[in-house]
Amino acid sequence: MNARRIGPASLTRLLGAWREGRGGPAYRQLADSLRLLILDGRLPLDVVLPGERELAATLEVSRTTVTAALARLRDDGFLDRRQGAGARTRLPKGPGERGMASLMAGSASEGLIDLASAAPPAAEVVHGAYAAALSQLPAHLPNHGYAALGLAELRAAVADRYTRRGLPTTADQIMITNGAQHAFALMLRLTCGPGDRVVIDHPTYPHAIDAIQRASCRPAPVGLPGEDWDVEGVTAALRQSGPRLAYFIADFHNPTGRWMSPQSRFAIAQAAARSRTTVIFDETLIDLWLDAPIQPYAFEEPDEGLVRLGSMGKSFWGGMRLGWIRADVQTIQALAPRRASIDLGTPLLEQLAAVHLIAGEETSLAARRDMLRHRRGVLLDLVRERLPEWKVASPPGGLSLWAELPAPVSTSLAATSERFGVRLAAGPRFGVDGAFERFIRLPYTLPPETLAEAVDGLAEAYARLRPSQAPARASLGAMV
Amino acid sequence: MNARRIGPASLTRLLGAWREGRGGPAYRQLADSLRLLILDGRLPLDVVLPGERELAATLEVSRTTVTAALARLRDDGFLDRRQGAGARTRLPKGPGERGMASLMAGSASEGLIDLASAAPPAAEVVHGAYAAALSQLPAHLPNHGYAALGLAELRAAVADRYTRRGLPTTADQIMITNGAQHAFALMLRLTCGPGDRVVIDHPTYPHAIDAIQRASCRPAPVGLPGEDWDVEGVTAALRQSGPRLAYFIADFHNPTGRWMSPQSRFAIAQAAARSRTTVIFDETLIDLWLDAPIQPYAFEEPDEGLVRLGSMGKSFWGGMRLGWIRADVQTIQALAPRRASIDLGTPLLEQLAAVHLIAGEETSLAARRDMLRHRRGVLLDLVRERLPEWKVASPPGGLSLWAELPAPVSTSLAATSERFGVRLAAGPRFGVDGAFERFIRLPYTLPPETLAEAVDGLAEAYARLRPSQAPARASLGAMV
Repeated sequence: MNARRIGPASLTRLLGAWREGRGGPAYRQLADSLRLLILDGRLPLDVVLPGERELAATLEVSRTTVTAALARLRDDGFLDRRQGAGARTRLPKGPGERGMASLMAGSASEGLIDLASAAPPAAEVVHGAYAAALSQLPAHLPNHGYAALGLAELRAAVADRYTRRGLPTTADQIMITNGAQHAFALMLRLTCGPGDRVVIDHPTYPHAIDAIQRASCRPAPVGLPGEDWDVEGVTAALRQSGPRLAYFIADFHNPTGRWMSPQSRFAIAQAAARSRTTVIFDETLIDLWLDAPIQPYAFEEPDEGLVRLGSMGKSFWGGMRLGWIRADVQTIQALAPRRASIDLGTPLLEQLAAVHLIAGEETSLAARRDMLRHRRGVLLDLVRERLPEWKVASPPGGLSLWAELPAPVSTSLAATSERFGVRLAAGPRFGVDGAFERFIRLPYTLPPETLAEAVDGLAEAYARLRPSQAPARASLGAMV
Repeated sequence: MNARRIGPASLTRLLGAWREGRGGPAYRQLADSLRLLILDGRLPLDVVLPGERELAATLEVSRTTVTAALARLRDDGFLDRRQGAGARTRLPKGPGERGMASLMAGSASEGLIDLASAAPPAAEVVHGAYAAALSQLPAHLPNHGYAALGLAELRAAVADRYTRRGLPTTADQIMITNGAQHAFALMLRLTCGPGDRVVIDHPTYPHAIDAIQRASCRPAPVGLPGEDWDVEGVTAALRQSGPRLAYFIADFHNPTGRWMSPQSRFAIAQAAARSRTTVIFDETLIDLWLDAPIQPYAFEEPDEGLVRLGSMGKSFWGGMRLGWIRADVQTIQALAPRRASIDLGTPLLEQLAAVHLIAGEETSLAARRDMLRHRRGVLLDLVRERLPEWKVASPPGGLSLWAELPAPVSTSLAATSERFGVRLAAGPRFGVDGAFERFIRLPYTLPPETLAEAVDGLAEAYARLRPSQAPARASLGAMV
């Protein structure tokens, strides 16, 4: 099925300084490094590796080393067993989700503390909302239950929510989706064709990068220096690369937690209008301000070409898989037939439950912010105490710290920390081309006692990396 | 956003004999024909029409006629209002889903009897299954609720179901999806790139055609003459067009209701193995045998390269939006990261409810088959009595009759029948390139008294078409 190939030069570049930072025989170091790249998602699945002879020549090791490394990976289930045609990357059998892009992995089943996903538990009100929804369900059971744009009541409730928050909206400007990622995939299908460019924050949400690349589009990353957005950088990217789409997490950016100022929003919206680029603001984290309340719609902006994605996932619960798109009526209508080529609608009961959750959100969101504010403080204190070399700042909202490490060891840290009971998503997962080896995302979504345990594990793992840190710094520097 | 153009020649071909079969001034006939093409999905949305001058020349009418026709469509909301750049197709504002591919439209809101969708109401057991699921939900609320491959319990339950039915299956061969259409979209993303061919039945499920085309792939249709499948035709298509994928609704085909014989399955699976084509059997309707019980897995076939899609939609309720993929373990593992680029999982409560529904399916499916068997008989009797010129046969299962009309008037009938209170999906929705104007799908999913009302409306609509039928037959003949 669709086997792509990776050339020896590209693979060597991905491997970086694979012989640094670990002990043991060369074949094992090579196998471990390749395993990490596969688990990490940087070496995609179903990719055919170069032949052994070629690989040995490019990596400047013996052919025996390569053969032994690949045999080990085969034994562990990371390469398929066919000989001759070139080894192909895969994931081992067994607990299904294991390793898949690490962010999607379940934690409980493997006894690791999951710092790879930044997703809080369900709000207390979720069960009650489902119970209320269940009592309304009988009225819908005689019908077939499909609605491409969503249940009328929920579309109205989401529209009213925008209106209440200062952005007048009608129900026909809303499409209900299976979460914000699904909403983004639909927008990609609507606006982009193969080869089109999509401007993104850099770093940004890993699954957004996946969605762009799997839609055969090209991410055009713009860095995030300083505290706000780099308006000049964004404007230049919009002007120069002629993107169809630009995707920003303006309200408590994932992973950095920053918030886009009204002036930046205005300037970016104007620049996008000039280049006829559709701007997407992913508002998945907008409810999670932890310092001053924000007023995201308290400025004039051109509404045309601006699309907002919302989600119940972080404000209430990810297990609901419910989100929405807010756009102009034409866009919403154009989305409906596109959606039918991906799926036929959002489950009805979830939509009824969402109406109840939105109606009672004021109290429940306040409680959720209190909880997260407390956990943010706990994690900041823990990191500053146990890992004083790491630079962390208190984000104004969102779900995670974006810690800066003194050396580009994020991937090694993620690998080592699993041995100390902690699963991490390494910095490069949040970027393209191997960037962010000097950063690690640390979510504060878990309970305080679990966070304490996790930081213990991190500190131990980090201590293991240290001896080899000084030499590694120079050789890995080029990857940052 | 991605405006495609349609040339005057293609549009003229699509319009066919637009001046036949209706009265009134030419501009209104032209406007009505274009409106139908848009509502019908044969003229896609966001397509830019040729200029007025060009159109007038090709259609051999006055420019005034074209101008008036386009103005009328603009007023009705089927073309956008921008001048100069060429009129672009769209759908009118108002009740959101209105007209979108007609199959997705809700019926109740507009007072039409919905014969466009073949989807039964919820099984009686659905509410109880949700209640049971709700009592289990608290155990899952402390977790983040995402699982790319689905809840372990449900994967095991679906696997056991296959095993019980004669096809030994393990849980790691199952991925839970948001319905069978979502499952098909995932398989397309896994196996196909732009331009790849996908062999389909012809006619087939309209959303399958949509999914193939929107994934930039090309359907390779194989007709369904006789009673079983055309094994020679399928084999030739597999050999000649080098398709990545072949999609069959072997178990109570939509729309014809036929069932693929074990010999045909075996021959097709073997031919597909020779051409290295992945075969998908969409088993959405497999539970709905209405005559003799079937034994779908009672034959030897090469399991490699065979993928089965299942769904709760027709067996229990479409409003659940839950389905699955059964494939080899490698395929399931390769699907997980692809899925993350479209959505992050299926809602958790639906999965818990599905476990309960599968556990008690024996009784509830028997009741559902009894209900559908009765309604099939009612509809057959009604059509034979009120529309004796239409050819209908009793399908061995599924949800619909595929009626053959004495003339190629399916699209006109669908348009006219709305005035008599019935929404239909015209025959060409089930094919490519305007085929099946001589057929209409008639689902027997609605209650008997509603079916009687619907057939009344159909008979009246059909009577209106009759006077112009004889002349139309010759000129429209080329479209069949």
